[in-house]
Amino acid sequence: MSLSSSLLFIYPYNIIGKSIAVDYYFNYIMGSRKKYHINFLPSGKNIEVSKNHNLRQSILDCGLEIESSCGGVGTCGRCVVQVKKGRVDTKETRFLSPNEQKKGFVLSCLSRVIDDIEVYIPEQKKVRAIIDKGKLAEGSKVYAGVSSQEQEKPEVEPWVKKFTVEVKKPSLSYGTSDLFRFKKAVREKLGIEEVTVPIDVLKKLPTELRKNDWEATAVIESNKNVIIDIYSQKRPNRLYGLALDIGTTTLVMYLVDLEDGKILGSESEYNPQIRFGEDIINRIVYANREGGLKKLKEVVTDSVNNLIWRLLLVSKVEPDDIVSVMVSGNSTMMHLFYEVCPKYIREEPYVTVANRFSDCKAQDIGLKHIRNAYTYSMQGVASYLGGDITSGILATGMNHEQDLALFIDLGTNGELVVGNCEWMMGCSCSAGPAFEGGGVKCGIRAIDGAIEKVYIDQDTFRCQVSTIGGSRARGICGSGLIDIIGEMYLKGVIDRKGRFHRDIGNRYLKEEDGNWRYTLIEASDSATGSEIYISEVDIDNLMRAKAAVYAGIKTLLEEVDLSVYDLEKVYIAGGLGKNLNIGNAIVIGMLPDINIDRYFFMGNTSITGAYISLLSGKKYRQSIALAEAITYMELSVNMKFMDRYVAGLFLPYTDLKDFPTVEELLFEMDDKRKK
Amino acid sequence: MSLSSSLLFIYPYNIIGKSIAVDYYFNYIMGSRKKYHINFLPSGKNIEVSKNHNLRQSILDCGLEIESSCGGVGTCGRCVVQVKKGRVDTKETRFLSPNEQKKGFVLSCLSRVIDDIEVYIPEQKKVRAIIDKGKLAEGSKVYAGVSSQEQEKPEVEPWVKKFTVEVKKPSLSYGTSDLFRFKKAVREKLGIEEVTVPIDVLKKLPTELRKNDWEATAVIESNKNVIIDIYSQKRPNRLYGLALDIGTTTLVMYLVDLEDGKILGSESEYNPQIRFGEDIINRIVYANREGGLKKLKEVVTDSVNNLIWRLLLVSKVEPDDIVSVMVSGNSTMMHLFYEVCPKYIREEPYVTVANRFSDCKAQDIGLKHIRNAYTYSMQGVASYLGGDITSGILATGMNHEQDLALFIDLGTNGELVVGNCEWMMGCSCSAGPAFEGGGVKCGIRAIDGAIEKVYIDQDTFRCQVSTIGGSRARGICGSGLIDIIGEMYLKGVIDRKGRFHRDIGNRYLKEEDGNWRYTLIEASDSATGSEIYISEVDIDNLMRAKAAVYAGIKTLLEEVDLSVYDLEKVYIAGGLGKNLNIGNAIVIGMLPDINIDRYFFMGNTSITGAYISLLSGKKYRQSIALAEAITYMELSVNMKFMDRYVAGLFLPYTDLKDFPTVEELLFEMDDKRKK
Repeated sequence: MSLSSSLLFIYPYNIIGKSIAVDYYFNYIMGSRKKYHINFLPSGKNIEVSKNHNLRQSILDCGLEIESSCGGVGTCGRCVVQVKKGRVDTKETRFLSPNEQKKGFVLSCLSRVIDDIEVYIPEQKKVRAIIDKGKLAEGSKVYAGVSSQEQEKPEVEPWVKKFTVEVKKPSLSYGTSDLFRFKKAVREKLGIEEVTVPIDVLKKLPTELRKNDWEATAVIESNKNVIIDIYSQKRPNRLYGLALDIGTTTLVMYLVDLEDGKILGSESEYNPQIRFGEDIINRIVYANREGGLKKLKEVVTDSVNNLIWRLLLVSKVEPDDIVSVMVSGNSTMMHLFYEVCPKYIREEPYVTVANRFSDCKAQDIGLKHIRNAYTYSMQGVASYLGGDITSGILATGMNHEQDLALFIDLGTNGELVVGNCEWMMGCSCSAGPAFEGGGVKCGIRAIDGAIEKVYIDQDTFRCQVSTIGGSRARGICGSGLIDIIGEMYLKGVIDRKGRFHRDIGNRYLKEEDGNWRYTLIEASDSATGSEIYISEVDIDNLMRAKAAVYAGIKTLLEEVDLSVYDLEKVYIAGGLGKNLNIGNAIVIGMLPDINIDRYFFMGNTSITGAYISLLSGKKYRQSIALAEAITYMELSVNMKFMDRYVAGLFLPYTDLKDFPTVEELLFEMDDKRKK
Repeated sequence: MSLSSSLLFIYPYNIIGKSIAVDYYFNYIMGSRKKYHINFLPSGKNIEVSKNHNLRQSILDCGLEIESSCGGVGTCGRCVVQVKKGRVDTKETRFLSPNEQKKGFVLSCLSRVIDDIEVYIPEQKKVRAIIDKGKLAEGSKVYAGVSSQEQEKPEVEPWVKKFTVEVKKPSLSYGTSDLFRFKKAVREKLGIEEVTVPIDVLKKLPTELRKNDWEATAVIESNKNVIIDIYSQKRPNRLYGLALDIGTTTLVMYLVDLEDGKILGSESEYNPQIRFGEDIINRIVYANREGGLKKLKEVVTDSVNNLIWRLLLVSKVEPDDIVSVMVSGNSTMMHLFYEVCPKYIREEPYVTVANRFSDCKAQDIGLKHIRNAYTYSMQGVASYLGGDITSGILATGMNHEQDLALFIDLGTNGELVVGNCEWMMGCSCSAGPAFEGGGVKCGIRAIDGAIEKVYIDQDTFRCQVSTIGGSRARGICGSGLIDIIGEMYLKGVIDRKGRFHRDIGNRYLKEEDGNWRYTLIEASDSATGSEIYISEVDIDNLMRAKAAVYAGIKTLLEEVDLSVYDLEKVYIAGGLGKNLNIGNAIVIGMLPDINIDRYFFMGNTSITGAYISLLSGKKYRQSIALAEAITYMELSVNMKFMDRYVAGLFLPYTDLKDFPTVEELLFEMDDKRKK
């Protein structure tokens, strides 16, 4: 608690005097009527708030974005802002140096408004409102050049399809009901014994059948044989579907032509739940609050409706012609999207309420615009191996191949599945937020200006970086971190434990309050005006993440008496994938030391799997069966995993025998240095 | 058009002058701002309306009831009122004598308000707001003493039922989803391979399963194996259902305990659609108007919700424990209840949109209070042989018996089904409204004060009547009419053509404007202060009705080479049934001249059948199959039917050989008169 607010509590009358005490009373007890004005820089947006309103909340209220993986409780240190004019009531935090505090930097979540203020939201901390679509589309492209049968030519036989039907005309001698004659025609056409015609379709039936002399087009949902629409033959139309990936960070939606599989449009935006907690654990915590689940459901539904609306606008597709939605996402995202309590996902024994949610009308779960559409969800395996992973398997096609393959989805959790067309086994290893730029002081997501590749000069230790989009550096993304650590290790900047060699004359190495850091970009050269560096704490975070992934891979393989050398293919999915330097990922001991040719980048496989399932009822059924057949290993209680995790807290690994190529490379580098 | 309004149209400026013309302009073109006050007698209720507001509409707007079988277009002549003070703009009508018009009597539907007025709504024309429940309950009692296996002990195995389930607790080594373990428990308990758990139930699943250590009660809909509710074992409860009969005139609802079949309460009220047309044809016409179908759906749904609410209030049953609703009614009523266009029912070739409406959640069709309930509808056969008739067959049990039986539902339409457990054939013969007191000047429904039985003194021709409830006579109900005509025929008051014998010294016979009538009750002795009589026009109406019924019976039987003497049982259902004098119904040639012991009164079989189907999924399935197996005969184009109909326009029938007992009786009566 800051000085000013402590004083208020300790000396309400005596020192501060009655007027302040009365003010205090009104503001705290009765609710303040006085409003303060906040001007946000550089956007110039402004807002009026009551006294003591939370500053982070004010930023959100104003429609601005602010990163905060802890959901606003002061533990992640990411919501830093600078108060340029006026003062706030703030709490002290270890995330800010005394020097920074002097300059007006505060954690917005720990600050309350007590004055008219001007607040600067630093550029590199702002979550960009619209993600770079080009990048995303490329990263999650369906025909991604991966040698998988799924992606070369999509199978088109969707769950929801239309057919023409000629209904016998009634007469005095054949006076059966419209429904009876319609069902008979369907039986003769499709061989389906009994279809269900819901009341809303029945209401249209008599008119539509008579419009074009008893010839009509019907739309059937063939899982439960429900007729979801009918219209006179005259109306020319195609049917469309939506594939939806609800990522913890990003929502992606495809608008798909259900007759030729063509993707007519794709839209994406950040998952707005981010403001309530950046990772799934914080969202579950928020969901448990009074009204929390409802709120999380609301905001994500609003965004999804927004995506639908944008796709409709751009494509000019008739809303009624969108007949199905396939939803993919991790278990927590799916629970939140269907407004089902996710609480038990994070309580031992970590179970979901459901791994797949019942088919339902899109409007029943709050989706707008598309009243005809049915919604399906991808089948998950367990709490931490969700429908997004099933989508991934489907996208790789490894469920059809004899080759032993490993599927890795690298995000906050590293999800792993190993197997082939005959068996599969999966697990999830909590990697922490490092891969997504979290827990790292200069970490950012893989957006324009993120450092993704680094070259260190062997002699001067000066860094040359390349950034996403080629612009000035703003920070380091997950794949950049992996690259940097690999490069630092190879160039002798850090040792096997991830500590800086302090005796090699590296002038980019600095110490402040006992913390060592290595400057990659000087403040004057960065896009943000701040220095971009990596500290030992940052390295530690990444070491833990990479150790978890490798320990997971090893544990999974050894459980079935296999080794990494048996792997014929390794599929890498997730945001990290596209920019990842596989070589350096091996150097740091995150990925197995096998031939690089065996690695395949897959991009966003969650949306790809949803797309495949949307297009083919058969594939969707297969995906359900395959998810049900995956053996899940719970690592959180696995002692072998823990042992391997600890062994992984070295570069590349305790036992160098696991990484022969790296060992060789290190010898070479060492030789070079000695020369 | 009345004088005053014609003047307005013909001489807007010249004679009436500018001020009236301006007034006219504002009222007709701009909408009137001037309000007129109407005081209704004897209720004392009053209302303010705009100039030119329809008087009948004003009565309805005021919440009062007014009979009107034509829906307010001036063709039924039943909405007579007396303007006591002030004046109205009315049209001339053949339904009122010049003398009556002089006294201020007008048809309210043809009158517009142009003054402050006082209007008397004659007692005998008012539809009683609440039907006599005692009578109804008696008439539609389930254990009605009829020798039918259905009614002695109802079979209880409802479509929707509950069961307890013990779900395996999750553990780290058994970390499947709640849903998976729940489905597994259901599979083991009920042997159902796959149940559907909709999202709203899924939302409750985790909490309810954990409340009582993984023991819970689930409610399953066993047609489509849907779990419709789940709760922790601790909550003691039974399940309930609603049987609903949507009659053209009356709505009846039973609240039923689904575990022992006990009827916990029954409620009924007039079908509020009456105000838009008293019979189905007029309702279909109204439904075709802009917004008409929606309006008809709305008012009936409101009334049904009202019945539900009243049953909930009285019984103290928890709304959530009501899990199913079984709806019965004729085809038009069902179309209107499900808001499906009934237009084609009255257009050749007279087809329904559907003979049964898809199962759906009660809330999907606007039912309130009972969010868990599923709604089912009885399967009908054709446009004029609806689910109410299937209910009737089920109620009689004739579908299980070898005996050849005839089922007759007597209302506006006479619906007939003949057959036994092996075959069935049915038809509908439009009997007109005579059986329900319509088309007859002193006709009323079967309410208190309705004449149901008549005795004519052979010498004086004076009538002695008995009325429903024993009170003073108000009018003649359908069964009373049949009795009167039979009695008049036997006592020589009318001849075989239904004409009065004018030469027998009958001093109760009067002539006015060429119309002859026979006074049953003098004005001074009636409850309404008006004379109660029967005219030759009235007799004609009833002759047509009875001729249609008998022609239907004969045509149906002869189609399968049977005669009325083959009938072993005749079941009579419908409002007419309870008070019907079978003897006189035979005398007038409406019912076959067979032993009276073969006749059985069944009361409201529509609600009984709904009740039986509600209680037993098996019975419900049987009823669907039996309805589908009934051969429907369309009589409107059947020449043999037309011949027999014409032959039936005599008492009892052209050919007396069809009615040997009646012939004998007539000889006896003739002998008696001669002595």
